[in-house]
Amino acid sequence: MKLLSLPEINQIWSTLKLNDSELIPAIAIDFKTHDVLMHAWMNKEAFEKTLTTGLVTYFSRSRNELWIKGEESGNTQSLLELKLDCDKDTVLVVVEQKGNACHTGSHSCFDETLIWSKNG
Amino acid sequence: MKLLSLPEINQIWSTLKLNDSELIPAIAIDFKTHDVLMHAWMNKEAFEKTLTTGLVTYFSRSRNELWIKGEESGNTQSLLELKLDCDKDTVLVVVEQKGNACHTGSHSCFDETLIWSKNG
Repeated sequence: MKLLSLPEINQIWSTLKLNDSELIPAIAIDFKTHDVLMHAWMNKEAFEKTLTTGLVTYFSRSRNELWIKGEESGNTQSLLELKLDCDKDTVLVVVEQKGNACHTGSHSCFDETLIWSKNG
Repeated sequence: MKLLSLPEINQIWSTLKLNDSELIPAIAIDFKTHDVLMHAWMNKEAFEKTLTTGLVTYFSRSRNELWIKGEESGNTQSLLELKLDCDKDTVLVVVEQKGNACHTGSHSCFDETLIWSKNG
């Protein structure tokens, strides 16, 4: 399937429910294991870049700038699927993760802090 | 493993990064399939209730009230694991979902709106 055109992306973006900073939460999952890799945010430009380049791109709230995931580390996320939830207020990207998703070196950002487990 | 005590929960909550409304995003995944079921928000009371009752509880921003998932529909989420991400700004709950997670009748809130697929 070819990547979407800008008018198509703009149309989709206009239907999304954004927060007060015009951002939408984005969840990245690994296409093989379905593991949740990370939770971050997209602005319109990040959403556009993700869908026009096929490389998952977020908006860094701490750095206040576009964040092509893995641009510096090489641990990029190739987009395989992009979905919305029923309320159109969350994006889910199914990705092929190169290397580790987490800056700590873990595969997923949720690998290290288990607070409670029923079987623990 | 027994549920956590209120002082333990308060200590954990105090380490979390909240948004301006004192909320934290929460992702629920199915323990069997690892499917992402939904993305919602927790306030301190919801986080406490989740960890003291074992029934996943959110804060409904639209209704501005505590939301015991499935309280009305019966489609409850039993807590199996609760994790944080590396930045402590997102909660991930691994759940046993009774019935469907989505109010549309879908198993997951992400089942119905595929925007783009590489293999589509």
